[in-house]
Amino acid sequence: MESHISGGGVDEKEVRVANQRRVGSCESLVRILVVLLTLAAALVQGLSKQTKVVPIKVIPSLPAIYLPVTAKWHYLSAFVYLVVANVIACVYAAFSLVLSFANRGTKKSSLELLIIVLDLLMVALLFSAIGAAGAIGLMGYQGNSHVQWNKVCNVFGKYCHQVMASVLLSQLAALAFLFLVVLAVLGLNKRSN
Amino acid sequence: MESHISGGGVDEKEVRVANQRRVGSCESLVRILVVLLTLAAALVQGLSKQTKVVPIKVIPSLPAIYLPVTAKWHYLSAFVYLVVANVIACVYAAFSLVLSFANRGTKKSSLELLIIVLDLLMVALLFSAIGAAGAIGLMGYQGNSHVQWNKVCNVFGKYCHQVMASVLLSQLAALAFLFLVVLAVLGLNKRSN
Repeated sequence: MESHISGGGVDEKEVRVANQRRVGSCESLVRILVVLLTLAAALVQGLSKQTKVVPIKVIPSLPAIYLPVTAKWHYLSAFVYLVVANVIACVYAAFSLVLSFANRGTKKSSLELLIIVLDLLMVALLFSAIGAAGAIGLMGYQGNSHVQWNKVCNVFGKYCHQVMASVLLSQLAALAFLFLVVLAVLGLNKRSN
Repeated sequence: MESHISGGGVDEKEVRVANQRRVGSCESLVRILVVLLTLAAALVQGLSKQTKVVPIKVIPSLPAIYLPVTAKWHYLSAFVYLVVANVIACVYAAFSLVLSFANRGTKKSSLELLIIVLDLLMVALLFSAIGAAGAIGLMGYQGNSHVQWNKVCNVFGKYCHQVMASVLLSQLAALAFLFLVVLAVLGLNKRSN
């Protein structure tokens, strides 16, 4: 009977260790995915550029003259914010991957907490940058007659598609960070019961 | 000696219960604060309106005519998003206050987890709405020569100040939700050790 109980205890411990390993591997995979997503989002946005020849009226009474105009990512502060937020998130994701690997052996509680709080801050940072770039992108796509801001995506279509792709990649990265926080909370909750 | 150990155990339990109560009261206070902040943010933004007489050129060759123009919150989708996000966060904060009160006696783990995950979703929702409204507000304040979007805050100053106040109130509410998630994670971590 004693041997049975003892065997059950070892089984339980083994199952718990196997579960922890599985969660650890899942966490590492998500962090690698976040590094790739944020890097891709920053590159797609940072390299977005399109030149078009457009009619511009210098003097209202004279006919328009045709000039080449270039759309670049750093012309709009919301897009700069998206690139900076993605670079910060990418560097942090790579750093946290190393930290979570280092912590796997020792399981330091303070380091684990630091990673959860920083993951949470990345959720806030990325979502605000996505909101900003999304709102400006939507304005460029639709325009607004009330404030007389004309749409620009009818001219710079390729540029707008690049912005949209960058926003979508950032959205996936933000959701991945959200998932990491939920995963950590579930792990803590399991250990506390 | 036995009595001393037993007495120490009771003391420890009392301290733990007192700490839990203090954390519970702090959580309730923050949730009440969030209800007030999000309600104020939604009202300030939802009631923002300003009418000004501005010169408008209907035909370029003729002189401008002066017409009354009104700036309203629902003319820009980013501001509508901010109001909707604040209303959702306000309703949820009030609901979660009741839930956390109800959970204080039973301490159901699943309900506690649900509240943490929903708090986390509110962080994401509010930060994206703040990013969107902040980006459009900044564009209205500064304008952008590259996309030829003129600033509007030089004309509708009072309206812009109301938008800014609403964004700031939402920012405080979002930080409060972030604090609630950190508080819950710290509580779980303490119980897991």
